[in-house]
This record gives sequence, C-alpha cells and structure tokens, in this order.
Amino acid sequence: MTEAMPGVRSASIGVWVGVGSRDESPSLSGASHFLEHVLFRGTPTRTALDISVELDEVGGEFNAFTAKEYTCFHARVLDEDLPLAVDVLGDMLTSSTVTAEDVEAEREVILDEIAMHDDDPDDVVGNLYSEKAWGTSPLGRPIAGTVDSIRSLTRAQIVRYYRSRYSPENMVVAVAGNVDHTTVVRQVRTAFSRAGFLADRSARPLPVRRGHRARRTTTGDVVMSRPFEQVNLVLGVNGLVRTDERRYALGVLNAALGGGTSSRLFQEVREARGLAYSVYSYASHYTDAGTVAVAVGCLPSKVTDVLAVVRGELGRLADGGISEVELQRGKGQLRGGLVLALEDSGSRMSRIAKAELLYDELPSIDEVLRRVQDVTLDDVNALARGLFRQQQTLAVVGPFDALPG
Amino acid sequence: MTEAMPGVRSASIGVWVGVGSRDESPSLSGASHFLEHVLFRGTPTRTALDISVELDEVGGEFNAFTAKEYTCFHARVLDEDLPLAVDVLGDMLTSSTVTAEDVEAEREVILDEIAMHDDDPDDVVGNLYSEKAWGTSPLGRPIAGTVDSIRSLTRAQIVRYYRSRYSPENMVVAVAGNVDHTTVVRQVRTAFSRAGFLADRSARPLPVRRGHRARRTTTGDVVMSRPFEQVNLVLGVNGLVRTDERRYALGVLNAALGGGTSSRLFQEVREARGLAYSVYSYASHYTDAGTVAVAVGCLPSKVTDVLAVVRGELGRLADGGISEVELQRGKGQLRGGLVLALEDSGSRMSRIAKAELLYDELPSIDEVLRRVQDVTLDDVNALARGLFRQQQTLAVVGPFDALPG
Repeated sequence: MTEAMPGVRSASIGVWVGVGSRDESPSLSGASHFLEHVLFRGTPTRTALDISVELDEVGGEFNAFTAKEYTCFHARVLDEDLPLAVDVLGDMLTSSTVTAEDVEAEREVILDEIAMHDDDPDDVVGNLYSEKAWGTSPLGRPIAGTVDSIRSLTRAQIVRYYRSRYSPENMVVAVAGNVDHTTVVRQVRTAFSRAGFLADRSARPLPVRRGHRARRTTTGDVVMSRPFEQVNLVLGVNGLVRTDERRYALGVLNAALGGGTSSRLFQEVREARGLAYSVYSYASHYTDAGTVAVAVGCLPSKVTDVLAVVRGELGRLADGGISEVELQRGKGQLRGGLVLALEDSGSRMSRIAKAELLYDELPSIDEVLRRVQDVTLDDVNALARGLFRQQQTLAVVGPFDALPG
Repeated sequence: MTEAMPGVRSASIGVWVGVGSRDESPSLSGASHFLEHVLFRGTPTRTALDISVELDEVGGEFNAFTAKEYTCFHARVLDEDLPLAVDVLGDMLTSSTVTAEDVEAEREVILDEIAMHDDDPDDVVGNLYSEKAWGTSPLGRPIAGTVDSIRSLTRAQIVRYYRSRYSPENMVVAVAGNVDHTTVVRQVRTAFSRAGFLADRSARPLPVRRGHRARRTTTGDVVMSRPFEQVNLVLGVNGLVRTDERRYALGVLNAALGGGTSSRLFQEVREARGLAYSVYSYASHYTDAGTVAVAVGCLPSKVTDVLAVVRGELGRLADGGISEVELQRGKGQLRGGLVLALEDSGSRMSRIAKAELLYDELPSIDEVLRRVQDVTLDDVNALARGLFRQQQTLAVVGPFDALPG
C-alpha cells in the first residue's frame, strides 16, 4: 500500500504483521512482543549494530511496537533513504537469525521493561482493567507478558512463532510520502525475497481477522494496592467492535464526554472542582470486542468525589444525551483532527495499513469526513443510552486495600 | 516572527514568555507554572469553557508548558483557523481575570499534578539530579514547585507575577505554516492590544537573558529511597551554556555516546549485556549553566554493572575520543533529524521563537547544516576530554537507602 504526498521530502514506512498478544496461549504470553525485540538483533548479513547504524546515520526514526492484534515495525526517513529502510526492514523480518544469545540478552531487557511498566501507574491500571474486563482470555493478558512467562519462553518457541506467524500472507507493507508506487513495490519485492520468503507465488493475503461473536466485558470492581502518591482508575463499559458503523457516532460522543478540554469530564472534574490533573475518556476496539472507558489520576482524598462525578456524567449522558452544540463541536473536533493528521506521513501510513490489515475497506478522507458529517443527534444519543446504562467495570490502583468510603 | 511553509494547510503558533522557574524566589517556587495554568481559566469576554471550546471545535491542538527559563503557549490549527488561535491567545495572555476561585481550583489541580510527578520515576530522578547539580539556586528547584510552596502561594503573588513578567517586551509570538507575515502581524497586534497591553509605543524587546559567569554543577552522589521496581539513575557532568559554539560538536559527541540505538551506551548496556531497557544520554543548556548526562532505568540487581559500564564508556571517550566513522554517523544523524523536522510546523515555530528569545541569532538551516558539517574529530575529542574527565554528579532513586556494593 502506498500513498503519495507531493511536496514532502520524507517517507514513512511500516511493516504490519497480523499477530499480537491475543494470538498467544498462556505459556506463550509475551511471545509477540519478545519476537519484535529479537528481530532487531541481527541477520546473516547484518549485526544488531549494523541495523542500528544504517538508520541512525541518515537521521531516521526507527522503532516498533506490539499491540493485542498486530505488530508494527516503522521508520521515517528522507525520501532518498527509503530504499535503505525497505532493505533493512525486509532483511530483519524475513531473515533474522534469532540466536540463543540474542534470546537471552533480550529476555533480560524485557524483564527490565516489565519492571518499568510496573512502576508506571497508567500502565498498571490499564493492565488491571484489561484483566478484569477480558478475564482469562488472551485480550486480558499484558502485551509484554509476565515475569514468569518471559522467564519460561524458549528460543525454540520464539523461532516457531516467528516462522508460523511472520508469513507474507499475514503482512502489510505501507508507505506514505514522496514515493512512487511501482518503485516501492519493486524495492519491497526485492528486500522481502530473501530466504525464499516470497517463493510461494500462489499465496494470497489472509482475510481480515474476524471474531465469531462479540465478546462482552466482565463487570465489577478490582482494587490493587500499590504505594503510589496518586490513585489511578479506569471506569468503563462494554463498547463497540472495530468495524461497528457506530464508531463515528462514538467519536462524537467521546469528544463530548472526555475527548478534550471542552468535554464534560474535563470541565466538571478539573475546571469546576479541581479534583484531578488528568481526566479523559477513550474507546478501544478489537475484532470482536471493545470498551469505552474513563481514566483519571487523583489524590486519594478525592477518589470518592471523582467517582461520583464521573458516574454522574455517564448517567446524564445515558438519560439526556448530548446537545446540538456538542454534536457540532464534536464533529468539528474530529474533522480538524483528521485534516491536520494528513500532513504527517506516519499518520497516513498507519491509516492505509490498518485499512488493509484490519478493516478490509479504505474509505477516502472525503468519505470519512462525510461519515462524520452524517452522524445525527439520535445516533449519538441512542449510543449513549446503549453504552452507559450497562453495568460498569472499575479498576483502581492506589495506596490502600479497598476503595475509601 | 513568522516562517512561511508553502504546501501545508496548517499553522503552528507559539507565544513564548521569557519567564520560568529560575526567576522565582523560594517563596514563589512554582509561580511561573501556576500562572501558566491559571491563564486558561478566563478573561472578561471568555470563560474557561469558551477558551477550550473555541480551539476544540476546530480540531486544533492547544496547550502550554513551563520550563526553567521560559513559558510557551502553543496551538496547531488549520490555516483558516489561525486568526481564532491568535485571538484566544492574545486574550488569555493580556486579559486573564485570575479570580480567587480560579487560583483555588488550579491549586488543587497542581497539587495533584505534583503527586503524578512523584509517581513517575523519570521525573523523580530528574528533579533529584537538578537539586544535586544546581543546589539551592532556582535552577535546582522543581518547575512545578513543592507541595508547601503551592499551598502557600497567594492570588496577590500570582497576579503581581503576571503583571510584572508578562509584558510585551518579554514575549515572542512565532508562527510557522501557511501564513503571510504582514497579515499575522496585524492579527497579533489587534489581539494583544487589549487592556492597553501594547500602549507603550516606545517599548523595546528585552535583551536575551544573560548570565554573569557560568555556574558549575555541584558534584557528588545522592540516593533517594522509593518503593519502585526499577532503579532510575542520572549520571552527569558540568556541560555547556546555551550559546557555547561547541554545541554542534556536543551534538555529534552525544550521538556517539547515547543518542540513538547505534550509540556506545545502547550497544554496551542494552544490546551486549541486556542490563537495561532504557539508556540514553542528553545535554541540557541554560543561559549560564549546562549539563551532559546519562539516564538509565534498570533492575536493582543490575545497577552496579550499569554504573561500571557507563563510567567505563565515559572514561573511554575522554581518553580515546570517537572514531572517524562515529563522527560521520553523528553528523548524518543530526543532518537527517534537522531536515525531517522541517516538515513539522511546530518544530519550525519553536526554532524561530527560541532564536529570538534565547539566542539572539537566527542562522538559516543551511548555516546550521554547515556548522554541523564543520565539526572536526579534534573538536569532538577535545570536548570529550574536557567534559568527561570532570568530577561527576550522580542521582539514584530506587528501593534501597544506599547504592548496593
């Protein structure tokens, strides 16, 4: 997939693989992320240092991340350096050697990364919320795995995971910037032809990942005691699956609830009452599951008031919906954000890649803007009723064993 | 200051005020940042909600930050919305009402923000390093202030700080994007003419802030006990003042030491030994002071090894300097990063604003690239010797009372 952006001098490339933590059995927990790390460590023709050097010396940005349903390796470089980025990525993804030494060194790095996440209250409460909402399903497990699973993973398991999951049928290469489609395709074909990777000419892209039936969130409260200064909480409800057509209405609803500084939550929790520095709402979407949630960090003395205000606002939205003014404001916010993002080659690259890997449709920007424009007050308010009358899931991390009051 | 970027549809605007935490007496600690918060809360013609709504509903990004030597209010919007952003910023900066109610509500928000920083190991060790390095001078105090200073600040103190520091002589308005200089100047003049703000036609811009003599870092070790999973440490030496011509050589030196994944520290600490997930070096510059430092987060069992490796690399650099290969790689990294940043209107806006407020010169990009190109191996290696043979400052935060071993 490519998108030409005349007038820019850069190019963003992403290699997206349709594998993530939700594809892992309990004993493989963290394997997708572990593998993402190990692939930076060398091929028959490049050491780890070579890989780092080639993109560092042209000033490129180069990184990767693992999500629950996909893994992405990405770079942003000057247009003239795109062939280099394509070649390095093709080499890493098709031909990494994954030596025992690489696995052991990265095991130590990842154990430290897990400790870092354990020291980050946002990460801790996010993982706790996922665990409560999705239970023992793979969606409920942390992407990085656990100390136990990372200690137990063997090189053989990681190599097997690599060989079985990193197939061309399960990958999208997306490039946006000052590029020509035919040229990029030729470069990608060459770079990814190593080790017979593209030898099966009859291979066809895997269909978009599909769920059999929507998986609902588990409701209820969970409290984790940690010696933090703040209380961090996530309060949410069952949401929408990724392809749900109501996602545009949800965008407007989220803007009104907690999507910016003009939102109800920001105004009520922070501006009017000074209860918290950080308060916002968000939606997460997966193939067959989703959640809409509010995240707040506050002082322990404020948590009872914060929960009362947040629950009050969710109830008000369910009962009264949003106003015409909020509808227009939410649409403007989505529209402006979409158009501003068009100037960033990384945003465009992600958009076309996700369209291919996750949505199976690529609406034009005009079509997306039209879908936003077509959202009605009834759409939003029916959604608010449907969402916020549901039972809630609450995850709290703070310096106590149970919620005060 | 404006910079036209034909071909983009956006504009970034920043209002930079030459005031920050280093201008505060101990009893005013946190006043610059407190004031930055309060200015979002309303003017005679706009409530806090109005301010939020106007930029949210066009999808703009709108925020502010306070540093030790300056405060910046910034927005990124579609070009057609720039007049709106100029008007909102002009109103806030010249005409905020700063009511007692605003001050009390923001006091609560900032106390929560301080608690959030206290839960962030990077922030904790960064503040501890500043305190050790700069002692009881204002540079050594946290930008947000302390719980005690924030509790004690009065509305009268904040209003006085606002009136005395937020004068036109002490501000730069910078805009980059699809803009026309004359038009922007007219809009800014109108928006900032409220309340007689521009009435003194004889006023001239304040000269760039100057130090009398360079202030050196205090050396030695400090350990803070916190119940974190990781140890976070910053190890640094006295560095360069902001306008030091050797800053280009320092850019190359920093790239080789810990500026990317090909750097010595990343390769030795993470790739070769798996000792830490996050390791990097950085330079901080102030008018009359500066530091070059290494930051690492690692498991407690690894801290002795991490310190030995980092100190070993600093010693090797002091004794042997960098190689010709590292020199060229570092220059490439700086050059690529500079050119890639040109596509972002926010980066361009910051560059021209800082030139006016902090440097008193605005070299063209070609001139900056030339200065980077002119850096020699001797420049870098003389700097490495001068920097890394100095006594060090070490700040450590971890789950112990003293460093192990």
